[in-house]
Amino acid sequence: MSEQLFTYNQLYTFTHAVFTKMGCSENDATTATKTLLSADIRGIDSHGVARLGGYVRLWEAKRINANPTIKIIHETPSTAVVDGGAGLGLVVAPYAMQVAIDKAKTVGTGWVSVKNSNHFGIAGVHAMMALQHDMIGIAMTNASALVAPTFSIEKMLGTNPIAVAIPAGNEPPFVADFATTTAANGKLEILQRKNTDTPIGWVQDKEGNASTDANVLKKQGALLPLGSDREHGSHKGYALGSIVDIFSAVLSGASYGPWAPPFPAYIPMPDNMPGEGLGHFFGAMRIDAFRPAADFKANMDNWITRFRHAKPADGFEKVLIPGDPEREMEAIRMIEGIPIVQSVIEDLQEVGKKMGLELC
Amino acid sequence: MSEQLFTYNQLYTFTHAVFTKMGCSENDATTATKTLLSADIRGIDSHGVARLGGYVRLWEAKRINANPTIKIIHETPSTAVVDGGAGLGLVVAPYAMQVAIDKAKTVGTGWVSVKNSNHFGIAGVHAMMALQHDMIGIAMTNASALVAPTFSIEKMLGTNPIAVAIPAGNEPPFVADFATTTAANGKLEILQRKNTDTPIGWVQDKEGNASTDANVLKKQGALLPLGSDREHGSHKGYALGSIVDIFSAVLSGASYGPWAPPFPAYIPMPDNMPGEGLGHFFGAMRIDAFRPAADFKANMDNWITRFRHAKPADGFEKVLIPGDPEREMEAIRMIEGIPIVQSVIEDLQEVGKKMGLELC
Repeated sequence: MSEQLFTYNQLYTFTHAVFTKMGCSENDATTATKTLLSADIRGIDSHGVARLGGYVRLWEAKRINANPTIKIIHETPSTAVVDGGAGLGLVVAPYAMQVAIDKAKTVGTGWVSVKNSNHFGIAGVHAMMALQHDMIGIAMTNASALVAPTFSIEKMLGTNPIAVAIPAGNEPPFVADFATTTAANGKLEILQRKNTDTPIGWVQDKEGNASTDANVLKKQGALLPLGSDREHGSHKGYALGSIVDIFSAVLSGASYGPWAPPFPAYIPMPDNMPGEGLGHFFGAMRIDAFRPAADFKANMDNWITRFRHAKPADGFEKVLIPGDPEREMEAIRMIEGIPIVQSVIEDLQEVGKKMGLELC
Repeated sequence: MSEQLFTYNQLYTFTHAVFTKMGCSENDATTATKTLLSADIRGIDSHGVARLGGYVRLWEAKRINANPTIKIIHETPSTAVVDGGAGLGLVVAPYAMQVAIDKAKTVGTGWVSVKNSNHFGIAGVHAMMALQHDMIGIAMTNASALVAPTFSIEKMLGTNPIAVAIPAGNEPPFVADFATTTAANGKLEILQRKNTDTPIGWVQDKEGNASTDANVLKKQGALLPLGSDREHGSHKGYALGSIVDIFSAVLSGASYGPWAPPFPAYIPMPDNMPGEGLGHFFGAMRIDAFRPAADFKANMDNWITRFRHAKPADGFEKVLIPGDPEREMEAIRMIEGIPIVQSVIEDLQEVGKKMGLELC
């Protein structure tokens, strides 16, 4: 699979121009670009510019409004529901996370459920907004249905990720960001490009049998919840994905479960959608609403150091802290550039052609 | 393995008498008994009267105070830290969950981190306290270290469960309650009694190799995080267990990670404990802090019905909603009684003998 290196600035310039051509305001184009590229720079290649064409096609299909009215439609001192106005999730999510942070400043914590939104990029970048305020940040989203519950052959849930960002003192923050499936859909896409099988436990075929076919989603198969099968705890992954779906979409009035709107614009919208658009859920907890931030951070430094020095198993160098791999990737890619595979480059060139822009 | 049936009332009378003999107030003995037996009645046999002897031995070792001063030591409108006064977790947890509920009544949500506590029984029963108030309830706790992080051979985390209870309308509530490991320790204990192997993916031996030995924890082996191995997402289970540890213990000032106090009283307390006792974390979110409760419940009924009718795989009758198995078990055991295995009966008789009580 051939690929080409781009600098962050090259991708930034092109992506920002695309969002501007879509009609986004300068502010929104900047927010959307930074949010989208936070995936590429951190090594989550499936959620960055690889999806830019997808957003453009949703906008062409009038499923995304480039000039949305994003607003709070209900609130209490510690909660809000935000209507994303069918805007880019890349813009709606930072708005809603800021609402959560502002509420946490006033009453200790803030919790915001969002409806009428779209794909918001990586969950981790939204959760991380809390860190600079000495807060714990939480972000989750529902997504179009690719996952079969335990005992089922029907796709009912998205890969519904959860991100939690926790500040430390001298150590870098703890940043967990993971799909509630055994493997994220992006991992399947990588194997598809390489024409390689999946391990057993990632997917099932349309009859619910164990499968290793990376293309099984196109053949009525399904992704499996974290845990893979009942004996290994897939009912826990199913429960986690369900909690994300309910907090994000039932609590806000978005479309949930199998009715979540699909990301690919060529897939028709589900019939009888029970709510509006995709849903997200955000939380911010001020550390000093619990104990002095300095004490907490000293304990977090101790926690991180202790876990990093847990005895490694043979063949492994060290135990990682959630967030380590992405942070290391960011340091490398800021210097060496971001590798983009040929199929994504071609898609971006196609986008550029439609919009009169050149990918340099 | 021989077992004997007891009625709920038989177990209630004996357990209440034991807590009273320990010196608990009438109120505390009642709360502790109801909390403990909620496990037996719901079929989570590892967390009910099977642990009563363990609590008594912790009290004898002066690690549990039967007359604790439980108090809020820090708070904001939506948060609190509770010092459990080394009391029974079975009593401290309902107190703290009530604080979360009271705060949610005022500002929409309440979040309480607890230090200086002990084992609190099953997480689900605390989360379920929120349901009658039309609130979503959340409960989690850290626990003594039995779980090795991904890439490690060292036991660093407890089985750290998460429970989330969500009200519905005509349907019974959604109640998820699960350890963040592939299999809970209670499942290992059942296999030990039967002298049976575990499936691959539940535990590893002291070198970090896959193992099927149900007794491996006694041989320096470890439980595995949900996901089992890196290829199947164990880094996600490790992250989840870590989040529970940090919310429960670092946020409150309890002892975290490998320093969490052990449940068996014969195991010495760890050196250099960085905090006080075990930690818990509770949350309560008022539904109508987001949208009208009636609208939410109508959507939850629709969610539950849709998922319950998802196409089952061959050989399975139906798709379950989190909470279904425990609810069905409760209906059966309230009528037919609760089976207690011989080894637990003998332990209870031993407790009774010490306290001048008879298990009838």
